[in-house]
Amino acid sequence: MSRVRVHNFAVSLDGFATGEGQSLDAPFGHAGDRLHQWFFATRTFHAMQGKTGGGAGVDDAVVRTWNAGIGAEIMGRNKFGPQRGPWQNHEWTGWWGPNPPFHTPVFVLTHHPRPALEMEGGTTFHFIDATPEEALRQAREAAGDLDVRIGGGPSIVRQFLAADLIDHLHVVIVPIVLGRGERLWDGLEGLEERFQIESVTTPSGVTHMTFTRP
Amino acid sequence: MSRVRVHNFAVSLDGFATGEGQSLDAPFGHAGDRLHQWFFATRTFHAMQGKTGGGAGVDDAVVRTWNAGIGAEIMGRNKFGPQRGPWQNHEWTGWWGPNPPFHTPVFVLTHHPRPALEMEGGTTFHFIDATPEEALRQAREAAGDLDVRIGGGPSIVRQFLAADLIDHLHVVIVPIVLGRGERLWDGLEGLEERFQIESVTTPSGVTHMTFTRP
Repeated sequence: MSRVRVHNFAVSLDGFATGEGQSLDAPFGHAGDRLHQWFFATRTFHAMQGKTGGGAGVDDAVVRTWNAGIGAEIMGRNKFGPQRGPWQNHEWTGWWGPNPPFHTPVFVLTHHPRPALEMEGGTTFHFIDATPEEALRQAREAAGDLDVRIGGGPSIVRQFLAADLIDHLHVVIVPIVLGRGERLWDGLEGLEERFQIESVTTPSGVTHMTFTRP
Repeated sequence: MSRVRVHNFAVSLDGFATGEGQSLDAPFGHAGDRLHQWFFATRTFHAMQGKTGGGAGVDDAVVRTWNAGIGAEIMGRNKFGPQRGPWQNHEWTGWWGPNPPFHTPVFVLTHHPRPALEMEGGTTFHFIDATPEEALRQAREAAGDLDVRIGGGPSIVRQFLAADLIDHLHVVIVPIVLGRGERLWDGLEGLEERFQIESVTTPSGVTHMTFTRP
């Protein structure tokens, strides 16, 4: 059975995975890029930008597992864009430009479905109004034998964790106090009982925690 | 100038430093001993119990710095005991038996002062109704040239952090999700800007984070 995985999911010490006030210019709200500086410094991220350089240590090694063996992603609408409510038009095609880094079918959970959006490089966005279980059924069908990634944001990851649908959760604890935004851990009391957990701090100062279903 | 230090202060992934429902049998409420298993496994804790054995690795090395150079402690009333409101009597002398492990003056912040309590081994509890600044003034006077430890619980540590009175904060991130209780980080947005931060995960699975004023 294919696994359901979360990767590179950064949270602050106070558990916020995104700040307050998402907008076109601030995908993570007032958090700015503070949750992801460790990620931007990796060789993998540099390569995604068509650049050379970047660190090739443990942060990078962990980051680059995100796409291996993934056949589909499920994301929330707030990861796809800053709009809320009914779509005003269909011009918005995500934050990632014409060739998004997913290269698989991507199921965007939204109460406002719209036509599928085929991008360059193999990414197709499907907009569906579905429960986590039903979204996962569709994503698994699209992924074939490969794994399904839950791409975030926090409310989507939280919902899939609450429904016990996650097999592998990689969380990155960033030593900042955001104070406000959207929390990952709410409603997940006792989560640790379902997983084997491994932690390691890297020289960038973040702590990688990997929750694996035994 | 003597420094103001916090040591061995354990918090869950969701930022709770104590659970819900403190009682005589459950000093940390529903958290039980889950926030402190790493601590109970150390040689230092074993020795505090008059026992031999226990781990002598990094957890232990970090733990044993808690008392070095400390001349006084400030704690909240909830650390001293489970009672709330006016004291019904003065029979309660803390959780720690006749010879508490502090061996210094200890200032207990409470809205209900009572006579000072002299224990064996050099610990004297002083019950004062004071602001953080005034409590620190008294504790510094009692400590002479030595440092002052802020012993917790969470609301006391949070108040002293908010007032920017802490020079050294050692927090231990325990990979559990408590879900409820008292949070450490509330109201401390941007705390990281005031400190140099070092993190390390140890084989017990906890992550020690040390915040030091530059």
